[in-house]
Amino acid sequence: MDNKTGTKPPHHVVIVGGGFGGLYTAKALNSKDINVTLIDKRNFHLFQPLLYQVATGTLSPADISSPLRSVLKKSKNTKVLLGEVSDIDPEQQNVVMRGEEIPYDSLIIATGAKHSYFGKDEWEQFAPGLKTVEDAIEMRRRIFMAFEAAEQEKDEEKRRALLTFVVVGGGPTGVELAGAIAELAYGILKEDFRNIDTHETQVLLLEGMDRILPPFAPELSAKAQKSLEDLGVTVVTKTLVTDIEGDIVTVKQGDEINKFGANTVLWAAGVKASPLGKTIAEKTGAECDRAGRVIVEPDLSLKGYPNIRVIGDLAHFAHQTGKPLPGVAPVAMQEAQYVAKSIKQQIKGNSLPAFNYVDYGSLAVIGQHSAVVDLGFMKLTGFIAWLFWSLIHIHYLVEFDNKLVVMIQWIWNYFTRNRGARLITTTDLPAPVEVNSKIDYYPPVNDKKAVKV
Amino acid sequence: MDNKTGTKPPHHVVIVGGGFGGLYTAKALNSKDINVTLIDKRNFHLFQPLLYQVATGTLSPADISSPLRSVLKKSKNTKVLLGEVSDIDPEQQNVVMRGEEIPYDSLIIATGAKHSYFGKDEWEQFAPGLKTVEDAIEMRRRIFMAFEAAEQEKDEEKRRALLTFVVVGGGPTGVELAGAIAELAYGILKEDFRNIDTHETQVLLLEGMDRILPPFAPELSAKAQKSLEDLGVTVVTKTLVTDIEGDIVTVKQGDEINKFGANTVLWAAGVKASPLGKTIAEKTGAECDRAGRVIVEPDLSLKGYPNIRVIGDLAHFAHQTGKPLPGVAPVAMQEAQYVAKSIKQQIKGNSLPAFNYVDYGSLAVIGQHSAVVDLGFMKLTGFIAWLFWSLIHIHYLVEFDNKLVVMIQWIWNYFTRNRGARLITTTDLPAPVEVNSKIDYYPPVNDKKAVKV
Repeated sequence: MDNKTGTKPPHHVVIVGGGFGGLYTAKALNSKDINVTLIDKRNFHLFQPLLYQVATGTLSPADISSPLRSVLKKSKNTKVLLGEVSDIDPEQQNVVMRGEEIPYDSLIIATGAKHSYFGKDEWEQFAPGLKTVEDAIEMRRRIFMAFEAAEQEKDEEKRRALLTFVVVGGGPTGVELAGAIAELAYGILKEDFRNIDTHETQVLLLEGMDRILPPFAPELSAKAQKSLEDLGVTVVTKTLVTDIEGDIVTVKQGDEINKFGANTVLWAAGVKASPLGKTIAEKTGAECDRAGRVIVEPDLSLKGYPNIRVIGDLAHFAHQTGKPLPGVAPVAMQEAQYVAKSIKQQIKGNSLPAFNYVDYGSLAVIGQHSAVVDLGFMKLTGFIAWLFWSLIHIHYLVEFDNKLVVMIQWIWNYFTRNRGARLITTTDLPAPVEVNSKIDYYPPVNDKKAVKV
Repeated sequence: MDNKTGTKPPHHVVIVGGGFGGLYTAKALNSKDINVTLIDKRNFHLFQPLLYQVATGTLSPADISSPLRSVLKKSKNTKVLLGEVSDIDPEQQNVVMRGEEIPYDSLIIATGAKHSYFGKDEWEQFAPGLKTVEDAIEMRRRIFMAFEAAEQEKDEEKRRALLTFVVVGGGPTGVELAGAIAELAYGILKEDFRNIDTHETQVLLLEGMDRILPPFAPELSAKAQKSLEDLGVTVVTKTLVTDIEGDIVTVKQGDEINKFGANTVLWAAGVKASPLGKTIAEKTGAECDRAGRVIVEPDLSLKGYPNIRVIGDLAHFAHQTGKPLPGVAPVAMQEAQYVAKSIKQQIKGNSLPAFNYVDYGSLAVIGQHSAVVDLGFMKLTGFIAWLFWSLIHIHYLVEFDNKLVVMIQWIWNYFTRNRGARLITTTDLPAPVEVNSKIDYYPPVNDKKAVKV
C-alpha cells in the first residue's frame, strides 16, 4: 500500500472540523500510506475549555489558539483547507466545498456544536453564548463596558442594573464565568473606578436543576456552590429561564414566574450540534437526537457507511451507559485516537472492537484559587484541585509557546490580581445603555433569591 | 492649595487622549493638589510602535495594550472616562462629552493622528492603514487570508496576484511591515502549505523619495534597504502612488505612469491629525498645518490660552529647528513631562522656559534579526541594532506582564521561527478573491522595478 510503489493511490481521509476531534485524528493519521485533508472554517484550533478566560480578560485569543497549519507542519501527508463544507454525497464519496467536490475514501465529521437557545434564537442578542473567539470578545466587551457605563451613570437604579450580571446555566462554563466575573468585581477591578464601588456588583448564576454542576457528585456540587458564594456569586437553583428580553430575564421557580433585571446576561445553558449532522443523517438514513447529534454505531461509524465516522460533540454515542457521552474534550480526543486506529486497521482489512470511553474524571474551576475535581476514586476541592486543573489544561494546550505564555499569565494574575487582556474592542464608543423604560424591574436581589416584580 | 484645607478646590486638569502624550501627562500629575480627568475613546493605552507585530501575527493586541484604569490605579487623583469629546468651549473652560459639559482649569489635548490618504479616502477599502487594534486585526486577516486563498487557487495568474503584497510608504512602519511579511513568506510559513510555494511571494515596498527611511542618515537608509532586500523585499523608491483601485496600484515614476497588481495593499504612507485639532483651532484662533496639526506656542499652549496645551502627534511644534517635531512616542512623552511640570509651576504662579525636545535618536526594525539605530553620535545596524531596539521597546511597554510576555514571544519566535498569533478572525470564510477581470495587470516584478502595463 506504499504510495511509492505506484500500484494504488494512498487512502484519502477527509476530516471536517479542526477541533479536538478533527485535529487529533489528523495528528494520529500522520503516515505516508494515508493522505489527509483537514477542512475547517477557521485557520486555527481553539482550546475551548479556556475560552471563558478570554471572555473575562485573563487571556488573549491567540494564547489559546494554534494555527492548524503550524500544528500540522510536520504532517506532510496532511493538507489543510480553509472553508466550509456545504454538502456531502455518501454514495459518490465526496464532500462539497464552495461548489467543488472533494473525494474521500474515509470521512470524519467533527464539526462540533454551538450554543443553543432551545429554539428561542431571539434571546441571543440579549444573552450571548460562548463558543467562538468572536463570542468571547463580545462577552468581554459587554462585561467591561457595563462597568465603564456604570462609572458614568448618575442614576442609582440604572447603575444597579449595569452592575448586575446574570449567567444562565450552572454547568462548568456557567460556573467558570460567574466565578471570574465575581473575582473581577470584588478583587481585580476594585481600585480601578472612582465613582462606583464595584462591591455593589451582583453576579447571579441561574440553574434549572436543584444543584449546579449536575454531572458531578452532589458533595462536589455543594462545595462548588460554597466556593462561588465565598467569591460573592448568588447561586439560584431550580430556576428555569422562560424568557429573555432586553435587560429582563423571566424565570420559572416552582410555580412562580419571577423576573430578574440585569444589563449583562450571559448564556451558558445549552448546545446544539452543527448543522452538518443533519445533512449527513438525511443522506445516510442515520438518526439525530434532539440536540441534533448524530447517533453513531459502536465503532463511531454510520449504519451502512463504515467509512463515514462522526466524532466529538456532533456524535451521540450511547452504547456504553445508555446515556450519550458528554460534549467534552477528552471524549473527542479518545474518539479521534480510536477512529485513526480504526482507519489504519480498515485499510489492512481488519476491524477494531467497539469504542470504549475511559472516563478519567471531571473538572470545573471556580476562580483563581479553587476548583472541583472528580476523579471517581478521588475527589479534590479548593486550591489543590485548582492546581490539578491548571496543570491538566496547560498540558493539553497544543503548542509550547501557548503553554508558556498561559502559565506566566496565570502566575502573574495569581500574585498581582491583575488582568491585562481586558480590552474593549470592536466598537469605539460605549453602547448606549437603554434601561430607562424598565427601571422598575431592578429590585434588590440581596436576599439571594429571585425577586417577584 | 491643599484640598484638605477646603479653601479652594484642587486644580482640575482634563486630558483628552490616553496615548503616550495623555497617559504620561496623567502619570506625571499624580499629586493630591491636582484632580485629573483622562478621557479616551478606548479603555486601554496602545503601544503603537509594536502594532505592526499584531498585524503580522507575532503578538496579540493585549500584549501591547494596557488598560488605562489599571495603569492609573494608584493615581487616586485621576478619574478615567470612556468616551469621545465632541466639543470644547475655551471661554467657559469646559469640554463636551455625550452632551455633558466637563469643566476644566487646565486642558491637555492629545488625541493624536490617524492614517491618511492625502484626500483619497476611497483608497482605504483597498489599502488599510495601521493605527488601531482593529486596523491591525484587519491587516492580519488580509495577509493570512491571501496565503489561504492562494493555497486553494488553481489559476496561476490569480495565485501570483494573491501572493503579491504591496506596502505603500517607506517610513519605519512600512519597513517593518514589509520585512515582517517577507519573513512570513520566506521563513515562517514555508512548511505550512502543500499546494503553493510561499517563496513565490512578492513583497514590494513603495517609497516616494529617493530612499527609504528619509529621516535617517543616508548610509542607514542604504543599510536598511540592503537588509530588506536580503529578506526578499523589492524596494521601489522614487515612486508616488497616484491611484489605488481594487487590486491595482497606479504609480508615477519620474514621468512614467506604471501599474502594480497585488491582492494585498497595505498603507503606511501618511497621517492626518485627529479632528479635535481643527475644533480647538477654530475656537481659539490657533492655526493648523496641512496635516491638521495645531501650531503651538513655545510652551505647547495655544496663543491667548495658556491653560490649553496640545501635545503629541496632534501638535505642530517647530520652534526648535523650524521643522515640526516628528510624530513619534519620545516626542509625546517628553511633551507630557513638560506640560505636567508646567501646570504644577503655573499653579504656583511660576512659568517654565520653552519646551526643548532632546532627540536621543531614531530606530527602525527590519525583521527578526536586524534593525537600524541612529543615535547621532553612533550608528548601529544588524543584530546589535535589533537587540538595542528590542530592549528599548520592552523597556517602554507600560506593564510588567506585557514586558514579560512580549520578551518570551520574541525569544520563542527567534529560535523557532514560529508565530502563534496568526488568527484570522472577524470573518468566517475567506473573502472572495475577485481578480478575474484584471488578470492582465499581474506582470512579473522580478526585475525589482515597476512594470509598465
